[in-house]
Amino acid sequence: MAAKDNVQALLFDVFGTVVDWRTSLIEDLGRFGAEKGLKADWATFADDWRGLYQPAMDEVRNGRRPWTILDVLHRESLDKLIAKYGFTGLGEADRDHMNRVWHRLKPWPESVAGLTRLKTRYIIGPLSNGNIGLLTRMAKFGGLPWDVILGAEAARAYKPQPQAYLGSAALINLKPEQVMLVAAHNSDLAAAAETGLRTAFVARPAEYGPHQKRDFKADRDWDVVTDSFVNLAKAMGC
Amino acid sequence: MAAKDNVQALLFDVFGTVVDWRTSLIEDLGRFGAEKGLKADWATFADDWRGLYQPAMDEVRNGRRPWTILDVLHRESLDKLIAKYGFTGLGEADRDHMNRVWHRLKPWPESVAGLTRLKTRYIIGPLSNGNIGLLTRMAKFGGLPWDVILGAEAARAYKPQPQAYLGSAALINLKPEQVMLVAAHNSDLAAAAETGLRTAFVARPAEYGPHQKRDFKADRDWDVVTDSFVNLAKAMGC
Repeated sequence: MAAKDNVQALLFDVFGTVVDWRTSLIEDLGRFGAEKGLKADWATFADDWRGLYQPAMDEVRNGRRPWTILDVLHRESLDKLIAKYGFTGLGEADRDHMNRVWHRLKPWPESVAGLTRLKTRYIIGPLSNGNIGLLTRMAKFGGLPWDVILGAEAARAYKPQPQAYLGSAALINLKPEQVMLVAAHNSDLAAAAETGLRTAFVARPAEYGPHQKRDFKADRDWDVVTDSFVNLAKAMGC
Repeated sequence: MAAKDNVQALLFDVFGTVVDWRTSLIEDLGRFGAEKGLKADWATFADDWRGLYQPAMDEVRNGRRPWTILDVLHRESLDKLIAKYGFTGLGEADRDHMNRVWHRLKPWPESVAGLTRLKTRYIIGPLSNGNIGLLTRMAKFGGLPWDVILGAEAARAYKPQPQAYLGSAALINLKPEQVMLVAAHNSDLAAAAETGLRTAFVARPAEYGPHQKRDFKADRDWDVVTDSFVNLAKAMGC
């Protein structure tokens, strides 16, 4: 029996693994910017925003600030970038609309087909640093057929802290070895494996566009190594 | 503009409102009992088990015991009933199977059709005292198309405590008046209304079989009063 035969739930990293956040931001903010007369290189803006993601979560991870959901961290980073880019005339409704671009991210082309197949046999859900409201709306926007929304907010810890993985497994009454994390990032899988989860690497070599530096391939012999959710479904017997 | 025009999410009481727990228990445990040679009036057994539900949660509500999920409370009650009924020879796997009957409850006949229509326009999810793992598996068993699993475990409070309602709304970034509780129980709706939620009563006069004593009709002028999820969908513009 392979290690993966015991798996009852597949939980997914979301940003980059399930959805193409970078192209979605460039297109969505580009349209909004054109309407509002904002001039920017939106690819650079998207990369700058994402660049503030880990430092913002670090403040929570190291205890310097209390638990704070990603929508709030995203908004603080956005306000900084709006000042840096010199955008003027953006009121609360505009800023809220821009911030909610993270609720309007498009799935990679084969994500929904693969998830739909996996759902027939496994519990499927996000195990993301995104908050529950963000992930719920993103699922409705993109048609992601999750069974349950798990991750950082549900477990009250940001990945790669162990509690993010262990708390998510516990919330669906499963032992770590009954849960598989699916991610396009070797570092996320390494942290999950450390807590006892099974692991599946799905290559997403276009996530960072021309700036991708890592995760072109699996660094280790994860339980599954593949290049799409449809192939993941096949590997998992669906 | 009616109060309900502001609603973005419909959250549902589950036991009795979405699923027919009593008939499900009688049929499921009746089959299991026949296999195992257990003799009982399974309707009485089901009613006895449900009768231990509120007292078990009271121990958590009043702080005499720390947060404990419903699966654990159900199991403690089951073990008491197994002793009371004099069932012998039931090992851990048998007891676990019996306890998970609460994960195998059948929806009322029109539940899935109504939810499917409501899902096109609203965020839909359970706001139940059931734990996340229980509700997730029940949804897969019965085909309930939830967007998100909320309720007691997510909010860390058992209904009718205010935090159960307020915490569930907050987890999807909504104000109380943007959330409607759907329930077949007037007392649940009264507690939800007290915290600012909108309310919909759906009559389920067969929930308790021949022992139903209350909730045949709405006690108050709730925002919606109806008799099925399909009619609820119509009332909510779906």
